[in-house]
Amino acid sequence: SPFCYWEMRNLLLAAVATLLLCSCSAAQREATSCGYNACPKPVPGRYNVHLVPHTHDDVGWLRTVDQYYYYEVQFIIDTVIEELLDNPERKFTYVKQLVKNGQLQFALGGWCMDDEATTHYVDIIDQHTQGLRFLNDTFGDCGRPRVAWQVDPFGHSKEHTAMLAQMGFDGLYYGRIDYQDQALRRKTRRMEMVWQASQDIGSPRADLFSGKLYDGYCQPGGFGFEYGDEPVQDDPQLYDYNVEQKVKQFVDMVNSRRQVYSSDHLMLTMGCDFQYQNARKNFKIYDKLIKAVNARTAAHNITVYYSTPSCYTKSVHDQNLMWTVKSDDFFPYAHQAHAFWTGYFTSRAALKRYVRTASNQFQAIKQTSCLAGLQRAGPQLEAKLDLLRQAMGVVQHHDGVSGTEKQVVAYDYALRVSTGINQAYSLLQSAWANLTGDSAAYSGMSSCSLANISYCPFTDSNNNFYLHFYNPVSHPVWHLARIPVKGRYYVVSNQQGQAVTSQTIPVNNGTLRVPERAGAKSSYELVFNVSTIPAMGFVVYRVAAAAPGSPGVSTFTPIQSVFMDSKPADGELDWRDGGSESLNERESLDYRPVFAPLKRDDVIEFSQLKEAKKSNPIGDSKMSYMAYYYGYPGNNSAPEFTASGAYLFRVTGPVVNETHVVWSNWTYQVLRKFANNGDSLQYSENELTVGPIPYDANTGREVIVRYNTQLNSSATFYTDANGRQVLRRVRDYRPTWPLQQTENVSGNYYPINSQIFLNQSDGSSFMVLTDRSEGGGSINDGQIEIMLHRITVRDDALGVGEALQEKGSDGRGLVVKVTHWLAADQSLPSSSRRRRELANRRYREPLIGYLTAEPKVKSWSGLRRPLPENVQVVTLDDWRGPNTKLLRLEHLYQIGEHPALSQPVTVALGQLFATFNILSATELTLAANQNLNSAQRLQWRTPAGGGTTVGDAAREAEERLQLEQDITVTLRPMQIRTFVVQVQYL
Amino acid sequence: SPFCYWEMRNLLLAAVATLLLCSCSAAQREATSCGYNACPKPVPGRYNVHLVPHTHDDVGWLRTVDQYYYYEVQFIIDTVIEELLDNPERKFTYVKQLVKNGQLQFALGGWCMDDEATTHYVDIIDQHTQGLRFLNDTFGDCGRPRVAWQVDPFGHSKEHTAMLAQMGFDGLYYGRIDYQDQALRRKTRRMEMVWQASQDIGSPRADLFSGKLYDGYCQPGGFGFEYGDEPVQDDPQLYDYNVEQKVKQFVDMVNSRRQVYSSDHLMLTMGCDFQYQNARKNFKIYDKLIKAVNARTAAHNITVYYSTPSCYTKSVHDQNLMWTVKSDDFFPYAHQAHAFWTGYFTSRAALKRYVRTASNQFQAIKQTSCLAGLQRAGPQLEAKLDLLRQAMGVVQHHDGVSGTEKQVVAYDYALRVSTGINQAYSLLQSAWANLTGDSAAYSGMSSCSLANISYCPFTDSNNNFYLHFYNPVSHPVWHLARIPVKGRYYVVSNQQGQAVTSQTIPVNNGTLRVPERAGAKSSYELVFNVSTIPAMGFVVYRVAAAAPGSPGVSTFTPIQSVFMDSKPADGELDWRDGGSESLNERESLDYRPVFAPLKRDDVIEFSQLKEAKKSNPIGDSKMSYMAYYYGYPGNNSAPEFTASGAYLFRVTGPVVNETHVVWSNWTYQVLRKFANNGDSLQYSENELTVGPIPYDANTGREVIVRYNTQLNSSATFYTDANGRQVLRRVRDYRPTWPLQQTENVSGNYYPINSQIFLNQSDGSSFMVLTDRSEGGGSINDGQIEIMLHRITVRDDALGVGEALQEKGSDGRGLVVKVTHWLAADQSLPSSSRRRRELANRRYREPLIGYLTAEPKVKSWSGLRRPLPENVQVVTLDDWRGPNTKLLRLEHLYQIGEHPALSQPVTVALGQLFATFNILSATELTLAANQNLNSAQRLQWRTPAGGGTTVGDAAREAEERLQLEQDITVTLRPMQIRTFVVQVQYL
Repeated sequence: SPFCYWEMRNLLLAAVATLLLCSCSAAQREATSCGYNACPKPVPGRYNVHLVPHTHDDVGWLRTVDQYYYYEVQFIIDTVIEELLDNPERKFTYVKQLVKNGQLQFALGGWCMDDEATTHYVDIIDQHTQGLRFLNDTFGDCGRPRVAWQVDPFGHSKEHTAMLAQMGFDGLYYGRIDYQDQALRRKTRRMEMVWQASQDIGSPRADLFSGKLYDGYCQPGGFGFEYGDEPVQDDPQLYDYNVEQKVKQFVDMVNSRRQVYSSDHLMLTMGCDFQYQNARKNFKIYDKLIKAVNARTAAHNITVYYSTPSCYTKSVHDQNLMWTVKSDDFFPYAHQAHAFWTGYFTSRAALKRYVRTASNQFQAIKQTSCLAGLQRAGPQLEAKLDLLRQAMGVVQHHDGVSGTEKQVVAYDYALRVSTGINQAYSLLQSAWANLTGDSAAYSGMSSCSLANISYCPFTDSNNNFYLHFYNPVSHPVWHLARIPVKGRYYVVSNQQGQAVTSQTIPVNNGTLRVPERAGAKSSYELVFNVSTIPAMGFVVYRVAAAAPGSPGVSTFTPIQSVFMDSKPADGELDWRDGGSESLNERESLDYRPVFAPLKRDDVIEFSQLKEAKKSNPIGDSKMSYMAYYYGYPGNNSAPEFTASGAYLFRVTGPVVNETHVVWSNWTYQVLRKFANNGDSLQYSENELTVGPIPYDANTGREVIVRYNTQLNSSATFYTDANGRQVLRRVRDYRPTWPLQQTENVSGNYYPINSQIFLNQSDGSSFMVLTDRSEGGGSINDGQIEIMLHRITVRDDALGVGEALQEKGSDGRGLVVKVTHWLAADQSLPSSSRRRRELANRRYREPLIGYLTAEPKVKSWSGLRRPLPENVQVVTLDDWRGPNTKLLRLEHLYQIGEHPALSQPVTVALGQLFATFNILSATELTLAANQNLNSAQRLQWRTPAGGGTTVGDAAREAEERLQLEQDITVTLRPMQIRTFVVQVQYL
Repeated sequence: SPFCYWEMRNLLLAAVATLLLCSCSAAQREATSCGYNACPKPVPGRYNVHLVPHTHDDVGWLRTVDQYYYYEVQFIIDTVIEELLDNPERKFTYVKQLVKNGQLQFALGGWCMDDEATTHYVDIIDQHTQGLRFLNDTFGDCGRPRVAWQVDPFGHSKEHTAMLAQMGFDGLYYGRIDYQDQALRRKTRRMEMVWQASQDIGSPRADLFSGKLYDGYCQPGGFGFEYGDEPVQDDPQLYDYNVEQKVKQFVDMVNSRRQVYSSDHLMLTMGCDFQYQNARKNFKIYDKLIKAVNARTAAHNITVYYSTPSCYTKSVHDQNLMWTVKSDDFFPYAHQAHAFWTGYFTSRAALKRYVRTASNQFQAIKQTSCLAGLQRAGPQLEAKLDLLRQAMGVVQHHDGVSGTEKQVVAYDYALRVSTGINQAYSLLQSAWANLTGDSAAYSGMSSCSLANISYCPFTDSNNNFYLHFYNPVSHPVWHLARIPVKGRYYVVSNQQGQAVTSQTIPVNNGTLRVPERAGAKSSYELVFNVSTIPAMGFVVYRVAAAAPGSPGVSTFTPIQSVFMDSKPADGELDWRDGGSESLNERESLDYRPVFAPLKRDDVIEFSQLKEAKKSNPIGDSKMSYMAYYYGYPGNNSAPEFTASGAYLFRVTGPVVNETHVVWSNWTYQVLRKFANNGDSLQYSENELTVGPIPYDANTGREVIVRYNTQLNSSATFYTDANGRQVLRRVRDYRPTWPLQQTENVSGNYYPINSQIFLNQSDGSSFMVLTDRSEGGGSINDGQIEIMLHRITVRDDALGVGEALQEKGSDGRGLVVKVTHWLAADQSLPSSSRRRRELANRRYREPLIGYLTAEPKVKSWSGLRRPLPENVQVVTLDDWRGPNTKLLRLEHLYQIGEHPALSQPVTVALGQLFATFNILSATELTLAANQNLNSAQRLQWRTPAGGGTTVGDAAREAEERLQLEQDITVTLRPMQIRTFVVQVQYL
């Protein structure tokens, strides 16, 4: 076999292959070369039907990725290859030959078909880079997918699409859009369009020809032969001879579909989930169908042939039609009334968080490996990243981080990521040892992966230790450290050996409920400011146990009960009570947690994810717990207020003041107000611990937090797309069609990757920055609502076959801890800067190494100077040898967000990094599989004109020159530029 | 493709192929020649596990035979061939090569895997002959199946097995035996045995090595990879790596199974219904499993390889072990307590009758075609039999005539048979035209296929016509003709032109309910005796409409109401009232129909066919209608008697007296007593018309007739097997294990193909001869009970997925008309003679041709002299050219049934037939695919010794000589001898 397991698997499975069998041999194809030249020739004067054999092979859903391979996908590979080789001459050649002659093509070519709602942009870029690199390495340019294939994700993202455009795709196809949207598009023949996916990047660079498949990606009803649909029975002797009937059925179906498209071509996707395990069955019957239809072409003027999405795209393009444009996105997705697919924005909140932190670690390990030049010692070091690279690629799947997979599959994803991180961790040790010449200190470096449950085995067994804070951000950052410890009294010293203010706080109730803490001695958390950590660099702090009263020792701050009779006094829970400092523009912010016992009228109804097939889709998904927070600048008037059931505690100290609220035995909240540490980008933190959610047979619980402000937000709010572009959302409104709203809540939910905020016309704003992907919206003016955690009572009958009822290791419901960063601003530039930079920091949070030996180097930066505040290194990765790197830089702002920071910015690359010089740079497309200069995309006519403008061309030529001559790059708002660079280590 | 549709289909589908993939190439096989030489070499000192890939492809069940081919089987053929060719050298050769080198083998090789309970012996022989001939013609001796493969039928017949033995098979495997029987056999390691299947034929000729598969024919649980069972995952990098676990699972399974068998070999049947549509999936995983198990052989002493049933059989045989013997049968089959599969003995009673009549016509057409020498005009005439031949082959399937298929499939079978008969009918016209030189008369000959509903379009439109009665029996027969006519008055003249007594009777109520009679003018039936019709010959009668009172005109006998107040007087329904003649030994027979309204205690509970999976298997299958008939020689005392609900009518006439009983609007009965016509083998006829059976959601109705006698039958009764051997049945008893009876009724039901009877120690007996296969028994001493028709209210959850609720063309429940011939005797020889000859006549009833023109020849016989009374021609068929015929003769009696007729009988073949002389004869095995002299079978050791006895050998040598020198054959009791004969037409 020419391919090993992983290669074969990735060939078809991860690449989500689309297959072309040209039954008429080379004669029907235009030439023997691949790409569009390998396409069948359109038949002039006929309506051309493109039969597109394809197989849709989730990399995890009801089964794990490995199980799918072994249960199903290997047989698809085998029988499909056999079939393709079978035709026309039945000779045995190799898979590469099939790719070379265009019989076997790939669509999209990412490591998976990723989700679009819950994926972070860095992960999106990574997984496409990884998949397309595999195809490039294996098959060369003939293996390069020409079109993107997002046929299963449950809604489509503008940012994701903009990135696909910048990856060089010529077209994009999707299977699911809102049913009302689709009805209108069918009626107006706007099923295909040019999506102008970034007004910052502009046309045509961020434009992508985008087509909605007629009704999903499976074959038309009645033609699912592998599923047992009635086959073509073409022997006239048969009692069931049905050729005329099948042809009529086919022609009727085609004629019905052609009404909603505008070209002379129709794409029929002839496949579905895990089809072609018996490729013979499909091809044999399709062969007969094609032959029968074409034999009667004079009667219906239809011609049909095997084709691929790229061939279809090319055929449509070549008709040079005028296309309408779209500039919003396709969220939220509802497939029928009341059936909004918005629960998955939050589903498996713990996995979503794990993926986010793993992504940060993955990027940081790649950065530090490159900075240290580990690959100079051989590729085996780099190979230690493979498992993590693959795991991160797989988990981006639309049944992965999306949370829509079975429980056993979710476990498998998490195991893969965990195994990957464990294997890659030694790279981090080696990198720091190498960079500081201090292997004594770093060979024993460990992490505390359970710090999120306030448990660190390292600090359990060490009284004195060093903390190595690595900051992956391209700018210096302040960090509020929170270290699980076993004692109350420590002296914390900074990189200069100076004691810093610290505070110990008992581990709180919410955390104590987690079974993994069994045996933990960590009873406290040591909190202090780390200010500042250098850009892409580290500082080392020392922590030493000390006697109470020692100089510089931490303040122990117990959790103190707050007496309540019937209700707290007005202002009792004002978040400012914990602190003593004046807090700039946020000083008048006033939070009041209020417990609202469940009343009939308060119950908010959610449509469960994929709920539609039930007669009453909202019947059993009442939300039975709600936490309300009231807050608005300058207004202390009390809203309606009920305290029963809520228990209040308080922590007061020099670093942080905390208010703890025990809402119930499964809902615990900590509101944190930090003392001013000098950072200009301060925020409050709201930690919400939810779970185990009580389960009873008839009650689904979808727990939200609702932030009520008195901002006049005019039904409008803003959410990010994949952590980058921000989209304006208007309640009960869609930009492109007259919405008939059927769900007040779930119909107004949108994916939140990193940020959601409200603006008022006077420039006031309120933002929530999330630590993972969540779903939320603004159900009432002035309000932000975010779903935190959810269980459902039954399956939604859309395939997964399980209710969402995550369990912890103790068999009880899973406990999820979410932290939101909250901030209010009085002006939009201030708000934008805080939001962009804090979102960047949230994702790229410092990695903390725990050391027993004192490291020689206490502070270091991988950058010779910090990057401009609006620029961030997205990728620094090894690439084909020790002196070649893949480098991506991004502009963090959109146009108009900030007077200065939204401007183009120029960065010289040559002496940017501390450990190597960049000798030359070549710009690539976003997923790094083509040189940008030579990459060509199909251009599409739109009413506003298409094609590169003169200004664009001049600018691009100038920037090419800048890069070639000065190794200097200019980044424009929202731009991500990708380079392969030749380096020389210093 | 080297094979056309029918050939390919038959190759795998009809032959129920078993496939061998020798993964180790020729090296592991003993030689390159086929047969046992192609088998893998057993590994000495190891426990040898034979993996037997096979596919079980019903020729109709949930889908029709064609649908199955197009939906499923063609892909099995394709992918299996591909797989077999794939290994070891992946070269493309042809299927014949696979057969030749033993990779592709066939088991059984009949046209189908026939049912054993409801099939008639003539059909059994035909369908095996047909399938084995196809294999022989296509593949030569390498394609000859060595073992029989009856893995799905629901019980096993002694006669069927005796015939398989005489066909030359070396072994027989079955999948279903009574659960108690199986438990004991497992415990005592008697799962394999030598079945001595005919004490008349004797050992070893009728002996067959017979093995019960461990628990059915599907792969062991957990190894159904095509069904999605966990595959072997053998990459150690996998999270789900499971090779050790799968090996352990396999070894544990093997070790558990080996406990119940006694040899060093174990057969694992690795396949199931319609498997190997994706042969790659199975073989790829099995390859891995085999490799993994054998790699660890030292640990468990097990070796495993691909094998076939014949290779397994040979390996077991070669160990020369001693085997226990069995001489009873395997009916009835229960797979667990209360779950007797006896309903299917009766299911689809109309189909069962249609198959029986079609079989008779099929035989008659073959006979007459041969007698007329039609094939001398070219094979195209013979080809007109093909559809009927194939239809008859298919319908013998164990989901065919058994009645266990879906409704749509039953329709398809009936359509095939009907189409076959229609196509073949012209052969009959040609044959008679040819034989009599009278094409003027016979070109317009028609049949009245609706005579069973008293409707004949021919007599509707003809007042005067000729009736051509052809008698397929090898002896002259009397026939009681019953012709649908539109008038009351006819003169019927015999072949000599003499008027014969005739009678017209109004069409009765039961028949009138059938929708197909719409438009029929046939309002009467004309009844008269035809005595006698020559052996294998015909007579012509004339029927002419006449005025009332004309000489010799028929007597019109209206149906007269019988007044009843509360109940008929004692003896009112005495069947003798209709007649005036003294009736020999039956004269004191006294029938009294009694209507028993349903009372709680009368309800008899039936376990439905395949009922077992329900918690209460008998819950909804109450029998809600019962008809009782009391009768016993010499005893007129009235039993309990209730008349309410019954309406009586009477017909009295010179040919027949009838008593009509209307039990309800869906149950109609006619009891007929015929005037003495001179036949020594008289009987009474009981016609029962049942249907449409009322349907309500919770009541299954299984309608029986119960004949109560006062015979002291000592719990004992007798039923035939496939119309030949009679088996002694004892209520609540099985000969080979201590029965724990769980069902008083269904647990005592047995298949009745043609006859059921009771004997008393003084020689008194009572018999019922059926017109089709039915189920029945003797639930109480002196009683015979037969199920007539049935509906069920729901599916039995064993696969068919439909309740049995047959519909007529009007959408109402199907109406079934059953006739039983009843007779009592005072001595066993008399009873045996009546039973054997009447059973022969019932099956081989005269074919009636309707003619408008007067035929020249009025009487004719195809035999120069009738055969001896105990000999019958089973088969006279064309065979490879116009002057070669296939001829079978049978001895109709078992040993001891009759002092004279049970003796051996000798027949000279040379001048036997009227139209040709037989020049030479070669004896073949029963299914005609081997010369008997050269056929060799494996011999098996049994306690009584095995092998041919000296006497047998001497007798056989003598009979060979007799055949060669004198073309004369001796037939011993129950013997069927098969000859290919060279003929010369006269």
